[in-house]
Amino acid sequence: MLSKESAAERPLSPTERTRLGRSSHKARSDRSELYALLDEGLVCHLGVVVDGAPRVVPTGYGRIDDTLYLHGSTGARSLREGGEVCVTVTLLDGIVMARSAFHHSMNHRSAMVFGTPRVVTDPEEHAAGLRAITEQLAPGRWDAVRGPNAKESAATRVLALSLAEASVKVRTGPPADEPADLDTPVWAGVLPVRTVFAPPVTDPDLAHDLPVPAHVSARVTDG
Amino acid sequence: MLSKESAAERPLSPTERTRLGRSSHKARSDRSELYALLDEGLVCHLGVVVDGAPRVVPTGYGRIDDTLYLHGSTGARSLREGGEVCVTVTLLDGIVMARSAFHHSMNHRSAMVFGTPRVVTDPEEHAAGLRAITEQLAPGRWDAVRGPNAKESAATRVLALSLAEASVKVRTGPPADEPADLDTPVWAGVLPVRTVFAPPVTDPDLAHDLPVPAHVSARVTDG
Repeated sequence: MLSKESAAERPLSPTERTRLGRSSHKARSDRSELYALLDEGLVCHLGVVVDGAPRVVPTGYGRIDDTLYLHGSTGARSLREGGEVCVTVTLLDGIVMARSAFHHSMNHRSAMVFGTPRVVTDPEEHAAGLRAITEQLAPGRWDAVRGPNAKESAATRVLALSLAEASVKVRTGPPADEPADLDTPVWAGVLPVRTVFAPPVTDPDLAHDLPVPAHVSARVTDG
Repeated sequence: MLSKESAAERPLSPTERTRLGRSSHKARSDRSELYALLDEGLVCHLGVVVDGAPRVVPTGYGRIDDTLYLHGSTGARSLREGGEVCVTVTLLDGIVMARSAFHHSMNHRSAMVFGTPRVVTDPEEHAAGLRAITEQLAPGRWDAVRGPNAKESAATRVLALSLAEASVKVRTGPPADEPADLDTPVWAGVLPVRTVFAPPVTDPDLAHDLPVPAHVSARVTDG
C-alpha cells in the first residue's frame, strides 16, 4: 500500500508546488543530491498538458550545470514551445515489505523539475545539449561516433529546462511498522532493486571485426 | 539522440491522442501486450494537471482485468477527484548504440493510459484494489501480512482507471543506422538493461528468528 510517511521531501526551491506535499515537514535543500540523482538516471518522464489533459512521455535527457536538456523531433507534440512541463526522474532502490499491508512501500529517489523550457536556437548550445543527452545514456559515445549532420540537427528540437524549481524525494531504510505490529510473527525487510547492464549484443550488421569498446564493456555489471 | 523511428506505436484504442504520434503508421492493437507490460512493471508515472500545469508523480499500481488501481493518502494533491490523468509505465530493455549520434536510442516497452479515474467507494472493491497494488509490488504478500484496519482503509483513497484508452510503444533490436554509415569503423550494438533483485535485507527489528519467506527469496535474481 506504499505508505509514504517515511519519505523525506526535499524541495531545493521553496515554491508553492515543491513545498506542498505530505512530507513537506521533512523538506531540506540539497542541490548536489538533485544533480547526483539526475546523473544516475537514464530515462525521465516528461509531463506536458495537451488540450487540457496530462500526457506523460518517457524520454532521454542530459544535464549541464543547472540546465536539463531534452530533445525530440521538431514534429513531436510533447515538445511544442510555450507550455509548462514537469520532468520526473525516479530510481527504484528497493521493495519495502512491512508486517502490515498498509506500510508496504518503495525505497526510491525521485526528482521533479518544474518550468517552461526554452527552445534552443544557438547552434553551439544545440550541439552541447545533444551531446549531454547522448552521453547521459551512453558515456564516451559522442566522441566515438559520427556527429549530427545539418539535416539531423535541423530535424531535432532541443529544449533547455532550468533546474531552478526542483524537489528531491528519498525513502530509505527498513519498513516503518506500527509499534503494535512489531511482535507479530511476520517476516519484514527490504528486497533491494538494482538496474544492471548485461554483456553487449553487437549489431549483426557490423561491417568490421571491431571489439566492444571500453566505454561499453566497462559498464557491464551482470554476467 | 534517441531517435524513435524504429519504435512501433501500438494504440489499443484508436482515440485521437493514442493514434497521433510520430510512429503511428506502425500502430497495432494488442491488449495482451498491454497487460503483460503492466504486470511486469513496479512503478508508474502518474500525470495530473494542477493549477493548469503538469505534475508527474511516481507511484505504485495494480491491475485487475481491464482496470488499473492507484492509491494514495486522502490528502494527496495528485489524487483529487475529477481530473483526467495519464499513467505511463516504462520498462527499459537496452541502450542502443549506433554509428551516428542521431540514431542512438533506447530499447523499451512503455504503456500510456488516459482517462478520468473513479474514486472507489465500495468496500469490497477498495480492498481488492489495495490487494492488487500490494501484490503488484510484492506478490504473495497480501495473505502473509496484517490487512488494513478501518482507520488505515479510511485514510487511503483508491482510484480506478479504465484501460479502455491506452497505447503501447515498443522498440527492440539493433540500431537503425543510415546506410551510408554502415561501413564506418565504429562499433555498434545494444547494451541490455535489466532490473534485478538482490538478496533481501531483513528488518533489524524483527522480533522473531523468522526465515525469509519463499515469496520473497524466490524473486532474488542477483547474488
